[in-house]
Amino acid sequence: MPGVNATLVLVLSLIGVFVFGLSGGMAGVRAQLDLFGAMLLAVVVGIAGGTIRDVLIGIPPATFRDWRYLAVAGGAGLIAPFAHPAIARLQRWIDVLDAAGLGLFCVVGADTALAHHLGFADCVILGMITAIGGGILRDVLVREVPAILRGGFYAIPALCGALIVVTAYRAGSHSIAFPIVGAVVCFLMRIAGMRYGLGLPSAAEVADRGLRR
Amino acid sequence: MPGVNATLVLVLSLIGVFVFGLSGGMAGVRAQLDLFGAMLLAVVVGIAGGTIRDVLIGIPPATFRDWRYLAVAGGAGLIAPFAHPAIARLQRWIDVLDAAGLGLFCVVGADTALAHHLGFADCVILGMITAIGGGILRDVLVREVPAILRGGFYAIPALCGALIVVTAYRAGSHSIAFPIVGAVVCFLMRIAGMRYGLGLPSAAEVADRGLRR
Amino acid sequence: MPGVNATLVLVLSLIGVFVFGLSGGMAGVRAQLDLFGAMLLAVVVGIAGGTIRDVLIGIPPATFRDWRYLAVAGGAGLIAPFAHPAIARLQRWIDVLDAAGLGLFCVVGADTALAHHLGFADCVILGMITAIGGGILRDVLVREVPAILRGGFYAIPALCGALIVVTAYRAGSHSIAFPIVGAVVCFLMRIAGMRYGLGLPSAAEVADRGLRR
Repeated sequence: MPGVNATLVLVLSLIGVFVFGLSGGMAGVRAQLDLFGAMLLAVVVGIAGGTIRDVLIGIPPATFRDWRYLAVAGGAGLIAPFAHPAIARLQRWIDVLDAAGLGLFCVVGADTALAHHLGFADCVILGMITAIGGGILRDVLVREVPAILRGGFYAIPALCGALIVVTAYRAGSHSIAFPIVGAVVCFLMRIAGMRYGLGLPSAAEVADRGLRR
Repeated sequence: MPGVNATLVLVLSLIGVFVFGLSGGMAGVRAQLDLFGAMLLAVVVGIAGGTIRDVLIGIPPATFRDWRYLAVAGGAGLIAPFAHPAIARLQRWIDVLDAAGLGLFCVVGADTALAHHLGFADCVILGMITAIGGGILRDVLVREVPAILRGGFYAIPALCGALIVVTAYRAGSHSIAFPIVGAVVCFLMRIAGMRYGLGLPSAAEVADRGLRR
Repeated sequence: MPGVNATLVLVLSLIGVFVFGLSGGMAGVRAQLDLFGAMLLAVVVGIAGGTIRDVLIGIPPATFRDWRYLAVAGGAGLIAPFAHPAIARLQRWIDVLDAAGLGLFCVVGADTALAHHLGFADCVILGMITAIGGGILRDVLVREVPAILRGGFYAIPALCGALIVVTAYRAGSHSIAFPIVGAVVCFLMRIAGMRYGLGLPSAAEVADRGLRR
């Protein structure tokens, strides 16, 4: 992202990776993994989004090559079981940080795809994948149907955030304003979604309604 | 595929992606995903085979970069819940289209691998993966043991179709006849498999028989 | 690995792939796959570790391109159901071979990563992934929470083996002694782990203890 303070993006990204890692570690507790398994799961959740993005772009996965991401995600996975009661108590604040990570990652992901000259739809989708890929892989590994696909207004905010970045960039604006707007919009949509229980109807519900007609 | 009308291949591929997307959307209905989750699952099913193939070849995934594939697969995933009763009624015809997609994709996949000078076994397997990868990932995401691995004569027709294409190419024929034969053989094997309930014995059955001896 | 007999490494690797393939075939029996599904699962278990490693490094997956790996893994998957009682009887010896494969693969994986100039942490993790990736994917495909993440002292020996190789290499030693030491240490740790039931506490246990305090 030209014009953005690289250190700031790194710090924010590491916070996002930490929170995603916590969610991986907590899933490891629920799935009866051992301590090392919980740590590995946390690393997967922390870096999978960026890694899948880079593999789909066709470049060596950068997230994976930065030991700070690995360390922060693994650390979160180790902390999660030990600080389990504290984390449960702070769940509300962790959800807020998670929403911030979502906003940041969809923007960083879209930006990375734009820098590699991918198509409009690809850049938007890669932004979303960067933000939600880790959470989907987390649920698959602990044998749950991915929560992100079941509801909860998580993927759509990420899609919208990426859409704002890509649209502005394609319209010719390289200003830093739009990535910030994209991240904030995604963050606020996610927060509003949690606060007011927003979400799309389930596909099964829609199908049933069709059957009853 | 030299000598093949590119538009024809594209149209056929998009039909295949559409039908694969429908199967993803229907799986989303069964797994209680929300509408957006069903759409995402449809996209995964529609493009995963080609994407895994390209990642294994070591080239940027082409399927992913073509927005038409994304749009058609996502559209199928959105239609699936709304047209659920109609789709259930038309299941027989959708199975036929699915078999056609299987035939087409195993041939296109093998051809792509041949164009990148991979070994004989790799090209055959990549043809099969192109055809069955999406269906396997679909089942993993909705937490089912992949139906394709459990039976039903699905992977073997894809393997045979790819085998025909690769054998002919390696024998020196670059005629378009063999890809067509490969696709048709795969299609007919699949149709015959459904019609007559063909399939291999289950591994557990074979193991039990060994135990009783 | 400079200075190592390439044929020896190949033979050992193929033995490792065969044993991993057997574990895939046996999982296929348990999961009620058909014979071809069990074979496919065996191939996945046999080559997935090396394939994921290469994709994460950003090079075309070499394991996948060597038909001998595919043939040996697939053969193991076909043998597994037919030789099920014999395999069950020989389980103790198969566990020993599996430990040997673990030791070999973590060293080969770390070595491949070192040859591509990745960072310290990456090389260690890629060594571990080469050794445990196939087993994790196996469990995901048959819808089990990966056993490797749940306990059993499997990932940590692989991590230690890779750590030895990478540390020695980075300290300037290109001697073949350290890869051998790494593989042997990993092998012995795994054997000792099975013999004495070593393992880390489960994350859930740790979390519960925190709650009771």
